Order: sequence, then C-alpha cells, then structure tokens
Amino acid sequence: MKKGTIECSVCHSKLVSPTTRSVSRAYDRHKSRVSSKQRALNFLLVVGDCILVGLQPILVYMSKVDGHFMFSPVSVNFLTECAKVVFAVVMLLFQARHQKVGEKPLLSLSTFMQAARNNALLAVPALLYAINNYLKFIMQLYFNPATVKMLSNLKVLVIAVLLKMIMRRRFSVIQWEALALLLIGISVNQLRSLPEGATSLGLPITTIAYIYTLVFVTVPSLASVYNEYALKSQYDTSIYLQNLFLYGYGAIFNFLAILGTAIIKGPSSFDILQGHSKATMLLICNNAAQGILSSFFFKYADTILKKYSSTVATIFTGIASALLFGHTLTMNFILGISIVFISMHQFFSPLSKVKDEQHNGKLEMVDLLDNHR
Amino acid sequence: MKKGTIECSVCHSKLVSPTTRSVSRAYDRHKSRVSSKQRALNFLLVVGDCILVGLQPILVYMSKVDGHFMFSPVSVNFLTECAKVVFAVVMLLFQARHQKVGEKPLLSLSTFMQAARNNALLAVPALLYAINNYLKFIMQLYFNPATVKMLSNLKVLVIAVLLKMIMRRRFSVIQWEALALLLIGISVNQLRSLPEGATSLGLPITTIAYIYTLVFVTVPSLASVYNEYALKSQYDTSIYLQNLFLYGYGAIFNFLAILGTAIIKGPSSFDILQGHSKATMLLICNNAAQGILSSFFFKYADTILKKYSSTVATIFTGIASALLFGHTLTMNFILGISIVFISMHQFFSPLSKVKDEQHNGKLEMVDLLDNHR
Repeated sequence: MKKGTIECSVCHSKLVSPTTRSVSRAYDRHKSRVSSKQRALNFLLVVGDCILVGLQPILVYMSKVDGHFMFSPVSVNFLTECAKVVFAVVMLLFQARHQKVGEKPLLSLSTFMQAARNNALLAVPALLYAINNYLKFIMQLYFNPATVKMLSNLKVLVIAVLLKMIMRRRFSVIQWEALALLLIGISVNQLRSLPEGATSLGLPITTIAYIYTLVFVTVPSLASVYNEYALKSQYDTSIYLQNLFLYGYGAIFNFLAILGTAIIKGPSSFDILQGHSKATMLLICNNAAQGILSSFFFKYADTILKKYSSTVATIFTGIASALLFGHTLTMNFILGISIVFISMHQFFSPLSKVKDEQHNGKLEMVDLLDNHR
Repeated sequence: MKKGTIECSVCHSKLVSPTTRSVSRAYDRHKSRVSSKQRALNFLLVVGDCILVGLQPILVYMSKVDGHFMFSPVSVNFLTECAKVVFAVVMLLFQARHQKVGEKPLLSLSTFMQAARNNALLAVPALLYAINNYLKFIMQLYFNPATVKMLSNLKVLVIAVLLKMIMRRRFSVIQWEALALLLIGISVNQLRSLPEGATSLGLPITTIAYIYTLVFVTVPSLASVYNEYALKSQYDTSIYLQNLFLYGYGAIFNFLAILGTAIIKGPSSFDILQGHSKATMLLICNNAAQGILSSFFFKYADTILKKYSSTVATIFTGIASALLFGHTLTMNFILGISIVFISMHQFFSPLSKVKDEQHNGKLEMVDLLDNHR
C-alpha cells in the first residue's frame, strides 16, 4: 500500500492518510453511503441503550440496603472496568475462533503489540474517564444533585464544539440550533426537580464555581470525543481489541486511585468487595454493558447519537413509570419531550444535512480553484 | 386590462385574477422581492407593537381604582372601535388632501360605494372579533386565567393551519417546527404562573371543555387570518378606507351587543361612559392603536409576524421589569426566550425558506408535466 494511504476495512476503498482532517472526511464519505445495514445497527444501538438505561434505576433501587449503598463507590468503578475487560477478552476469543482463512490472526503477539502501539491514544480517554469519576464527587460538594444534573446538560454543546475541533465535523446552523434545543428540552423536563429557591438560576456565582463547572463539563465531553477519535482513527483494529486496551487502561487508573485511597485512608478501604451483593453485581454488569455499548456508538455511529439515545431512554423510562405507577405526566415533561423530539428531527433530518453538504461542496470547489491559480 | 388580470399597485406588474390561490401567489411573488423598504416597514411595525404592548400593563394598572375596574368591559370594546373609526376618518381626510393629480378621488361617493362593495368581506372578521370579546368572558368562567393564557398559545398553530387553508401559504417542515417551538417557548415561560395543582395538565377534561377550547382558539385565529385575506385581496383600496369599514362594522356589532345587554339587564348598563377616567381613555387609545397597527401587519406583513412581534414585546417587557424593579430572571423565562429566539430564527431564516421555494418549483414542474400529458 502506498505511503499516506489506508484501506477501508468495510468497503476496501483506498483512502488518504489518516490525518485528523481526512479521518473525518473518510468517515463522512463512509457515512454518506449509509446503508440500511448502518440504519439497522443505529436502531439496535439505541434500543439496547434504552433497555440498559431503563434497567439502571431498578438495579440502583435493589442495590440499596435501608436506602443506603453499603459499598465504596470507587470500588464500583474498578469492578466495572474489570467486567468490561473480561467481556472484551471473551468476545476477542470468540471472534478469533470464527476468523476466516487468510485474515491476520487476532491472537498473535505481533498483532497484539502492533495494535497496542497504534491504539496508545486510548489511554487518553481512559485517564479522562477516571478523572471524571472523581470530579463527580467533588461537584456534589459544591452544588446540589439537581443543579449538577442541570449543568451536565451543557455537555451536549461542549461535545459538539469538540467534535468540530477534533473530528472536523461540520454542523449546519439548524443542527447547532437542534443541539441547543436538546439542551433546553432536557432542562425544561428537569425544571421541577430543582429546589424551590433555585429556579432563579440558583447557582453560587463565584469564580471557583465557574471553573469547577467548566472542568466538570469539559472533561467527560473530551473523554467521549477523544474516545470516538481514537476508536475511529484505527478503524481496522477489532473493536474488542480496542476495548481491551481502553478498559485495561481504565482498570489500571482506577486501581491506582484505590491504591492512593488505601495509602491515605488506611488499608480498610482496600477491600474492594466489601458490601457487595448479587444486586450490586447486576448493577456493575449493567454499567459495564452500557460502557461497551458506548464504544460501539463511538466507533460505528457517533457521540451525538449516543446523547440523543440517552435522552430518548430517559423519556421512555418517564413514560413507562407513569404508565406502571399511574403517575400523571407533568406539563414540564410534555413540553420537554416535545422540544427533544423536534430537536432530534431537525438534527437528523436531511433538510438540515443537505445544506451542510452543499456548503462542503462549495468549499471544495473553492479549494480546487485555489489549487489551479 | 384583460379579464382575469389585475395590476399590482406597488410594482405595476400584471397579475393573474384574484382567486384565493393567485392572491396568495401574487403576494408571495411580491414578498420575494422584499426590498429594504419592506424590511424597514417590518422593523417599524415590530417596534411600534413592542411600545404599545409594553405600555399596556402600566395603563391597566393606572385604570384600576382600588384594584378594580369601575367600568363595564363591554363599553371598552365599543369605545375602542369608535376610537379606531375616528382615527381612520382623520387619516383618510389627511390622505385625501395629499392626493396627487390624476389619482382617483378618495372622498367621492362613487369611490366609497365601490370600495364598500369590494370590501364587504371585512364584515366577517369584524363579527368574529366581536364574538371573541364575549367568548373571553365565557372562558374565564370555565378555566382560571393562567390556563386561558396557556390555551391562547395554541392560536399560533391554528393561525398557521388557517393561513395554509385560506391564503394557500406554504410552510416548510422546519417552519412548522418553528411555530410549534414558539408555542412551546411561550408555554415554558408561563409554566410558573400556573397554579400549583395545574402543572399536571390541570384542565377539566370534559367534552364541553374541549369544545369551548376549540371555539375559543379558532374564532380569534379565523378573525385574524380572514382579516389578512380581506385586506390583501383588495390590495389597491386605501388601508384607511378598509379600516373605516372594518371598525365601522365592529362598532355596529358591539353597539348591538350593548343594546342586547341593555334589553336584558335594564337601561343602567346602557350608560357606556360610566366609571371611565382619563387613564381608561388612554387605555382605550392604546387598544385602538394596537388594533390599527394590527391591520398594517395584516395588509403589509402577515399574521405570523404579528404573533412573533407580540411575543418579543412580552419578552422585552419581562426584561425591562426585571431591570427596573430588580427582579431576578427565572430559569423558565431564560429557557422560554431561548426557545422563542431559536424558533424566530428558524421561521424567518432563508435556510428554511429556500427549501420551500425549491419545493414549490418542483410542484410547478409536476403541474406542467401533468398538463402536457
């Protein structure tokens, strides 16, 4: 293969070298040929995500003893990473047994070492995710949980900005507005859960609070986008091998954190299985499955679809709990989901996309003209 | 002039006969040549509307004696119609004095009679407006004021449907969504003003309530759209002459209502000036000015612009009162106006309009092909 070109593992077409720009271009081209297969995959991803997110509150409820968690939250993160590593190894063995003749052996040491070198970038999102797990606890000290939830909504916009910067994704004006509407829609839905006094933007407007908010919102967004970038830039490495690296790094970072806690707080906090039950194991499996599904979103779809999927899952959970437990749907909920559905239609509608591609076309024409001068 | 054609009074181009379809087409074509003059007019209309709507709460406050109105609300409607008639007559006299040589005399009996015959349609919106004034009182008996306000928001969508049916206006999907967002944005802003129990769609869900709501929303919307249709379909009649007819009919219908009330309740309710003060006269003048400005919106812009204008006016009033009286802006207000501004941008953005015209182009091509078969 020529230097600076790469073969697409899906359509076997030669692509230009994987610089940031062309990775995104190549993916855009790949995406524009969206087949019914891709659509079916997107659908399955969203349905799977909805089921896992829907199970979450039930498992959380079952994991509590007298309304409290008996285990250390840090240990949950570590055990989740371990569960993901186990899943990745099992899937890798399964995939290796079903390899066709002539394909590069998945389990050879040389393949593994080369993939490890190529996918070293995955250490970045793994570290960012680990940092984020600690930031969550810090934020709870500064803001009440409802405000934290509200601030989390800002991630949608930060993710879009980062996708533009890192993945060179282009969004039309309508798509930017759709993302703003997604943020607004989720916020309208959450408005009633804010404490009474807080409805008038009840945030402590201090510089330190601003900085914490900025860090709290940027770190997980950067983790997701960088994860998408790292997974897609090595498109021909098996996703299970990529997961093995990602979660391996994650387990190491979380283990170091537990080690650090044990050194500071004494060895009692080192007993990571303390307080766990069958229910908490199910919760950990659910967390792990959500994480694995995310990596499929990042590699084969994108971070924005993942965000919409989570929102739709929350909506379905709301409707289901209203139907099951006979709650009435609040006006906030109805207005909120209307905004979310309009936002979703506008973001994925070809109406807003075609504009974008025409725009791209024009830009490329300008590039061509510039080259010929 | 050929039968079935008409000359545009603005650009002097020959247009096809004024059937409903072509009136709207002609106006669309007229509108597509939107000059900076038209934009300046739109801007002046919106600014004027904002000032008048902004003055309203101050005048209402000044008109109250010990927190109550001392006059009959029916008399306000009648006096407002009379004020409008006076204004129309004054403007007509003013316009007649400044007529150029060779123009048809505005004040001749034959011109007046011909215009009256051509503009007989204006009796329809005048009657609908008069009916609406009574419906408002009936609604207050069935729903609380906040719910009435909330239900009023539905008018935006009903107006759009009626514009499509009566004026053959075409909206793109994005524009329909923008109108839905306008409705949602205003509702989010009003959410806090709903009484506690009512946040879970606190409407009495009875058939009669549905019917009242339908009538309450449809009558004023139909009045506005039919007004726009009647004013635009006789585009070359002076707007002051058209106003004279419209408000003349309005005054007659309201006078009949007062007469009816006097017959039922006794002659004391016939004293229409009872309880009025200088402040209430200013309130009536403001109402009259808003009505006159509406007719400019309907003839030279459209009902949708009027709706957006009123919403922007409410937003500015909210911001101004927050600045003047040191209120904090609520989260609802901020989320609500964000939605309204996104909606406004999407509705008026060329992004959503061009699509629509391409679509029109395609439809006309299909029509042509059909004709040649």
